[in-house]
Amino acid sequence: MENIHSYLQMKRDDHLEELFSFLALESISALPEHHKEINQTANWLSKALTNAGLENVSVYETNGHPVVYGDWLHAEGKPTALLYGHYDVQPVDPIELWESAPFSPEIRDNKLYARGASDDKGQVFMHIKAVEAILQATGSLPVNIKFCLEGEEEIGSPTLPNFVEKNKELLQADVLVVSDTSMIDKGKPTICYGLRGLCGLEITVSGPKSDLHSGLFGGAIQNPITALVELLATLHDKDGVITVDGFYDKVASLSAEEQKAFNALEISDESLLTQTGSKSLFGEKGYSVIERLWTRPTLELNGIKGGFQGTGVKTVIPSEASAKITCRLVPNQDPDEIIELLQKHLTKHKPEGIDISIELFDKGKPFITPFDHKAIQAASTAYETVYKVPTSFTRGGGSVPIVAIFNELLNLPVVLMGFGLPDENFHAPNEHFHLENYDKGLETICHYWYELAKVW
Amino acid sequence: MENIHSYLQMKRDDHLEELFSFLALESISALPEHHKEINQTANWLSKALTNAGLENVSVYETNGHPVVYGDWLHAEGKPTALLYGHYDVQPVDPIELWESAPFSPEIRDNKLYARGASDDKGQVFMHIKAVEAILQATGSLPVNIKFCLEGEEEIGSPTLPNFVEKNKELLQADVLVVSDTSMIDKGKPTICYGLRGLCGLEITVSGPKSDLHSGLFGGAIQNPITALVELLATLHDKDGVITVDGFYDKVASLSAEEQKAFNALEISDESLLTQTGSKSLFGEKGYSVIERLWTRPTLELNGIKGGFQGTGVKTVIPSEASAKITCRLVPNQDPDEIIELLQKHLTKHKPEGIDISIELFDKGKPFITPFDHKAIQAASTAYETVYKVPTSFTRGGGSVPIVAIFNELLNLPVVLMGFGLPDENFHAPNEHFHLENYDKGLETICHYWYELAKVW
Repeated sequence: MENIHSYLQMKRDDHLEELFSFLALESISALPEHHKEINQTANWLSKALTNAGLENVSVYETNGHPVVYGDWLHAEGKPTALLYGHYDVQPVDPIELWESAPFSPEIRDNKLYARGASDDKGQVFMHIKAVEAILQATGSLPVNIKFCLEGEEEIGSPTLPNFVEKNKELLQADVLVVSDTSMIDKGKPTICYGLRGLCGLEITVSGPKSDLHSGLFGGAIQNPITALVELLATLHDKDGVITVDGFYDKVASLSAEEQKAFNALEISDESLLTQTGSKSLFGEKGYSVIERLWTRPTLELNGIKGGFQGTGVKTVIPSEASAKITCRLVPNQDPDEIIELLQKHLTKHKPEGIDISIELFDKGKPFITPFDHKAIQAASTAYETVYKVPTSFTRGGGSVPIVAIFNELLNLPVVLMGFGLPDENFHAPNEHFHLENYDKGLETICHYWYELAKVW
Repeated sequence: MENIHSYLQMKRDDHLEELFSFLALESISALPEHHKEINQTANWLSKALTNAGLENVSVYETNGHPVVYGDWLHAEGKPTALLYGHYDVQPVDPIELWESAPFSPEIRDNKLYARGASDDKGQVFMHIKAVEAILQATGSLPVNIKFCLEGEEEIGSPTLPNFVEKNKELLQADVLVVSDTSMIDKGKPTICYGLRGLCGLEITVSGPKSDLHSGLFGGAIQNPITALVELLATLHDKDGVITVDGFYDKVASLSAEEQKAFNALEISDESLLTQTGSKSLFGEKGYSVIERLWTRPTLELNGIKGGFQGTGVKTVIPSEASAKITCRLVPNQDPDEIIELLQKHLTKHKPEGIDISIELFDKGKPFITPFDHKAIQAASTAYETVYKVPTSFTRGGGSVPIVAIFNELLNLPVVLMGFGLPDENFHAPNEHFHLENYDKGLETICHYWYELAKVW
């Protein structure tokens, strides 16, 4: 382990420079105009995997963005880990709120600022460098490793399920390892054993065939914005409780054991206020903040638009208005069922005088795994060796839909060992990654492969 | 009158070419980046007035956009008409819905397509050419005429009240004439004797300091879009009735005489459906469509925005969301009182967990004048001479706030003789002006000045 440590120390500057070039690639999956950069990023990864010593490296073309694969399978009799990550990133708007350009990585105050620094390019990069370090320092890995890196996670992984289905043999393994979650706080290594699922839709309300003068027609024609607002307002009550019939029917309640583990985390309301810059918290009465975030479903309006968007006044009744809605789901909610309930609700409450149309987004099931599994316990040991404190066990409010897919198609236990921190602005301006966790994370990953070989 | 007619016939092509160059100037008052074109348009008008034979032509600089003035005051003992119009136009978005570029005028099917063709550059141009024709054909005008042309009508005329106040003597007249309204239908000359007023505001809801990941924070933080939607939904009931306390308190009811005049208009619901391309009408129960449009106030959401506006999914809780609201007001509502009621309502119904801020738009009072006034009756005679059918008397749903200002500051009767048609897409893509009304309108205006001299 000493040789591995020395190698990482020696190469630190080179590695960071390499990470900068990875983060500079504008691999925004949601925007079609960035397809070229998506492909460049896949090719960049292919070279990086090969340089690290991985074999059978290939950029698999799909109907969507490419999947990058590479493996090292010479640890006979040892377990095989499938390492999943994603090289795509979220859009960067509102761009004017970034202190440094999102694709010009910059270190400030020992934090690396760039879109994707934490979610998830930085963490993918660490896994590549861990393999490189072990191979360079020892000549072989203690376990077999397969990398499967996709470019569509931020748009709901529309292509990967089909890819996994088609390549079950290629991807078969004993455990799935993903580093795309957060530690609960600085210096507190965390293993996430459950994630919320996701489903959503865009609703468009249409009225007159073109924008109308609100003076000439106002009062006799339904305004699509007014109708949209009326319809969307039926989705929650004043406390944020979702009022879609049947929405909560299958929500599992929290076990006493989980409740105890959550209480041990000592997450304060204040830390959430600080992270978000909100003046007050908000949500379902009768649940702690942690419960609201990890164990309760949500229905969020992620975007709304209609009518005049410029400066000043334009007295129009617009021809249409639309909103993007996503739900976070918890065990045992089913995305297909929830989308059906939501569509029923929207149709039932449709105001008079307009039409609605609905476009569905991609879905992901919620996911949960027992936290006493040996693959998870090995991760806990690796963390504690490096960070010198007990590991926290958490669930996550976010969604990695593909985790549920892997779990379902390959029947794998899943280890979510994330090195991000909750205030690192994933999906928002000024995303960053603490370099302390970059360094400790690299060491932890290396330890993990040895621990995993040991416990198996 | 025959000489005037011949002159207009002879010059028709030249005049249309000149109108094209007027319409090509991108005088959008709402967008600061068009200030240069606003000034160009004012200078263009100054030359056009001079060329027509008007005197004392001047471009008056103001704190906002310039006011263009010109007069001809040699009809001793005859009445003086103040001719008001505006040379600014509405923004052109959504630009992709225009069949020809908004500032590249084009004649199709005997209609002139361009932003401002009907509202109001085309109608201003007709008044200039009427003066030119009479002066060229006869050497003098039958009445005294003062032109006062502003460049801020589409943004609520913020500067003109002060200009009028300061230049009362310059602008003093016996009657105000405005051509900025519509005929009720093709071939039906119409005099509008009342207009709705306007007031409005932009409301911004702010929550977290920056956009948040909806997975990591959803459920424990109020979503500003959800809060905005909840708040806006409190403004109407399901039938479109405005639920702001006191909103209808001062609304005057319709006189039997007006009711009778409205019934004579024979405006069908179908024509409104055709004009707007809506599948159904909508609005306050117990009122005819005409009553809803002309005699009832409205509260419209003209624009709404918040969160992700691009293609696909972005799972954010945005830091803010906003909406633009305008109210159309009827006698005897007061814009200041209504804005106060609206602000009170928004503050009272503000959801938990967010802040709101409000920016006020400019205001205009509603306006009404008796339709048996001699200046109006003279206009009616002029119309009937050219169009050969009885004049319809209407009220308008739109607002020309400056009409109320002139009325208040100069104490003038107002004649609204418009030559537009209701389906000419003012404020919307593919604005156009029927050339039939360009030609007949020019003749009508010329007749009007002679009729006005006669009845005074």
